[in-house]
Amino acid sequence: MNERDALRRLAADLPHAGDDAAVVGDTVITTDMLHERTDFPPGTTRYTAGWRAVGASLSDVAAMGARATAAVAVYADDVFDPDQLDRFVAGAVDVCEAVDAEYVGGDLDSHGEFTTASTAIGAVTDAGPVTRSGAAAGDALCVTGEWGRSAAALRLFERGDDAAVERANDLFRLAPRVADGVALAGRATAMMDSSDGLARSLHQLAEASEVGFALDRDRLPVHPAVDDVAEGPADRFELAAHFGEDFELVCAVPEGDLDDAREGCPSGLARVGTVVDAAEGVTADGDPLADRGYTHG
Amino acid sequence: MNERDALRRLAADLPHAGDDAAVVGDTVITTDMLHERTDFPPGTTRYTAGWRAVGASLSDVAAMGARATAAVAVYADDVFDPDQLDRFVAGAVDVCEAVDAEYVGGDLDSHGEFTTASTAIGAVTDAGPVTRSGAAAGDALCVTGEWGRSAAALRLFERGDDAAVERANDLFRLAPRVADGVALAGRATAMMDSSDGLARSLHQLAEASEVGFALDRDRLPVHPAVDDVAEGPADRFELAAHFGEDFELVCAVPEGDLDDAREGCPSGLARVGTVVDAAEGVTADGDPLADRGYTHG
Repeated sequence: MNERDALRRLAADLPHAGDDAAVVGDTVITTDMLHERTDFPPGTTRYTAGWRAVGASLSDVAAMGARATAAVAVYADDVFDPDQLDRFVAGAVDVCEAVDAEYVGGDLDSHGEFTTASTAIGAVTDAGPVTRSGAAAGDALCVTGEWGRSAAALRLFERGDDAAVERANDLFRLAPRVADGVALAGRATAMMDSSDGLARSLHQLAEASEVGFALDRDRLPVHPAVDDVAEGPADRFELAAHFGEDFELVCAVPEGDLDDAREGCPSGLARVGTVVDAAEGVTADGDPLADRGYTHG
Repeated sequence: MNERDALRRLAADLPHAGDDAAVVGDTVITTDMLHERTDFPPGTTRYTAGWRAVGASLSDVAAMGARATAAVAVYADDVFDPDQLDRFVAGAVDVCEAVDAEYVGGDLDSHGEFTTASTAIGAVTDAGPVTRSGAAAGDALCVTGEWGRSAAALRLFERGDDAAVERANDLFRLAPRVADGVALAGRATAMMDSSDGLARSLHQLAEASEVGFALDRDRLPVHPAVDDVAEGPADRFELAAHFGEDFELVCAVPEGDLDDAREGCPSGLARVGTVVDAAEGVTADGDPLADRGYTHG
């Protein structure tokens, strides 16, 4: 059973699953585990790891259109190096501050491999939470920010020289789109974050909302770092649309709300296509877009 | 650096650390990682593991005198066995239901060893959160429930026959003392749960509140299972007071509030001693009580 099937199974029995975070009253809550082998390539600093682990959870809060309030994390390693731990906590504190949330501590554990489990909570706005299931044909398909950061970072980590690794760390420290998510609450009809990549996110939104998506490839904002590492246009699109881990928001917004939504989003909100009928499926420039992305280990 | 020193270090930089859960507005939040090698002896079912992992976090919410509202968990294993996962979730759901909270899902990860990270949130009552730092000389030292369950369970797991293992699983499924914690909010001057054992808990409360404790050994309610496995009176006290992982509450209650507090606690509230001046230290029947317990791996 792969992770997706397992998650689906887990979701079937639970009251609030299938969205980026669970909703309990006015609170949203989400948890994620990351570990060295699959999530932190050689060269990733502990500061970056703390930022990114907690940032991934804050991104899930953002995807619900909620204000992030706090985060906790478990830090597990085979030995406790106090400096490494301090750096991890500094990264966790800083990413929380970047979105006006508080990092309030966590737990320590010993483990053969550096592993972290982070949990974030948030407060639903008066507009209510945004789920994955409300997109309607005719809505504009929109995304925040620029795509392919993490894919570019991975290539830079692989390159391995100091300058490349430093830049890769910068790229790996996503800014969770909490302010954008809050601006989109009450405007977006469906939303999620792009942890599994744009293509896979569109398929997930399509399934939850029972719609299709027509993506216009040229409209997708691609991060400048991608151009520095991509081997031609096909690779460029692959990195931007399939790799994932960019933690940008993907959402559907009714045409009439588009200007207000765009104005409210500090990270930018690009219209990259249109919500269509389910029968039309998920396409990019008219061709089927494969439900393929980064499979988390 | 051992875990305790590391946690102390982690705590020094954070706004809300040193208590069983962090307080953010009216919400408390706590997270814990458990794994097979150190926390789930051979024979522990996945149902018990799900119950116990989430129960440990709910116990931390209880220790703050807050109402538990929800929990999430990460489930990580080397292979995803759907039946094992189902049983884990069933245990997590059931322990949440036992304290009127909701289990709202989680994350999956792959790991060489079965590992789980659970997070619980709760709502502070009008009486406010109960921390570890308010005990005053003269208060009654009280505990909920019966002690030594987990120590007895461990011996039964070691025995290994079917009946022993079944009983060990029963003992391992603690009932988080949430109702007791809520009843103690506004009455207890300091409180924590006993995850590290009674002796260590008393030393931690003593340090946080700048007091001492005079424990009366005979007053400590010992779980009947301890009598079935203990090798004499010294071992009996060792299992009940030093092993830990019982997830009972330890608190200080002013004499005048003792009757009301006792009445409100469905798990029972036994007076086991008295809060004394810091200079007197932590004693049991007048002898120093070693700051020694179970060290979590």
